[in-house]
Amino acid sequence: MELLTNQNYIDQLSIDCVIFGYENKQLKVLITKLNFKGNFYAIPSGFIHQEEDIDEAARRILEHRTGINNIYLEEFKVFGSANRNNKEFLDQLIAHNYPDSISEKTNIMEYQWFSKRFVSIGYYALVDINEVKPCLSEVYASIEWFDIHQIPALIIDYDKVVLAALNTLKEDIDKKLNVFNLLPEKFTMMEIQDIYETIFEKTYVRTNFQKKILELNTLERLEKKFTGAKNKAPYLYKIKK
Amino acid sequence: MELLTNQNYIDQLSIDCVIFGYENKQLKVLITKLNFKGNFYAIPSGFIHQEEDIDEAARRILEHRTGINNIYLEEFKVFGSANRNNKEFLDQLIAHNYPDSISEKTNIMEYQWFSKRFVSIGYYALVDINEVKPCLSEVYASIEWFDIHQIPALIIDYDKVVLAALNTLKEDIDKKLNVFNLLPEKFTMMEIQDIYETIFEKTYVRTNFQKKILELNTLERLEKKFTGAKNKAPYLYKIKK
Repeated sequence: MELLTNQNYIDQLSIDCVIFGYENKQLKVLITKLNFKGNFYAIPSGFIHQEEDIDEAARRILEHRTGINNIYLEEFKVFGSANRNNKEFLDQLIAHNYPDSISEKTNIMEYQWFSKRFVSIGYYALVDINEVKPCLSEVYASIEWFDIHQIPALIIDYDKVVLAALNTLKEDIDKKLNVFNLLPEKFTMMEIQDIYETIFEKTYVRTNFQKKILELNTLERLEKKFTGAKNKAPYLYKIKK
Repeated sequence: MELLTNQNYIDQLSIDCVIFGYENKQLKVLITKLNFKGNFYAIPSGFIHQEEDIDEAARRILEHRTGINNIYLEEFKVFGSANRNNKEFLDQLIAHNYPDSISEKTNIMEYQWFSKRFVSIGYYALVDINEVKPCLSEVYASIEWFDIHQIPALIIDYDKVVLAALNTLKEDIDKKLNVFNLLPEKFTMMEIQDIYETIFEKTYVRTNFQKKILELNTLERLEKKFTGAKNKAPYLYKIKK
């Protein structure tokens, strides 16, 4: 495992990213699987260079995993309990992959660096799922979208990080008007309603919902979307500049 | 200046606290003045022990400065630009106080530790101003309440931290129903209205305001508050358990 103590990172500080996408009435999260034997699932994360703003570090990590460089993101919470570290999962990983050389592995500098307590800055990101090209690295065997209700058990406290990100997203939606970042540039009112219904797990009355969204005064109405279907063509909208 | 590299703190990570109090239609912030020649004003801040949760560290710092141990606090934002460090103010402080030994001072270990880049976790706290007994230490020459509109220039980026805390407080008020932490246990509707008007710098119509607050369904009405004055005695309220 290539750990990167030689790259002049800030010690004991990491960035964890919960990347949300939306597709077919499912809210999805981008989950990585570590490139080792054993089911070590994680969310994209990384460290902060000494010469780098924390927001820049988050953008770098997100771009490396999604291929998108102007991603919408919000710093939402710091995870800083004293017993938060990588040691437990790292020891499991080593026992699984290098059973004959545990004592040797745990002696190396990189293990010492990586297994310390880490305070993590949590970011959540909203992306148009069609624009993402999940990018692997040496560290990741796979990187895939999972429905938020079907995420496998994650290492460290990442389950808690994902849940906290979801709760913040729910709080932020109307305040920051950011949910539109999950959609392509142009979308119908029904597509927004589908997203709200998926995230909040409830249904809305169509006319009331449309009124509520239009009152946010953030959308511009465009041409109609003709699909050739029998029902009336709906209007397209986009975010006002 | 007693710096504390020997106390096993996490490197390059600090906690900054914006402590809000309220009195006489003024929103106030607790400001410290460093115990050196020169006008070095700051907000209470500190570092995180290796064995300490970040919230615990914030509580410890707040208790040390206010004497209150069950203070209401919220982590609200991380300040992590790459050029954020203590070096500029530290060099000014040394030039002011030890003009003849600048090179010597800047050679010591503690200077090296303290002048590095620091990522800071911002907390805001709400206190009943009457319960606070501002506590000095060797590092602080004074610790006093300032009206938020009359805070002196602060070191590092603390002006920005205070402003960000105020903006978060405004966003949180109705959502977290936390403004009552600025008042004693029992209070009148007019006292709450005064706080809202002070924080948002606008006036509210009394009947509408009362309706809005009661609809939050978080207050319990108590006995009337008899003051001996001619006008009608107002009811007292407290937060529901």
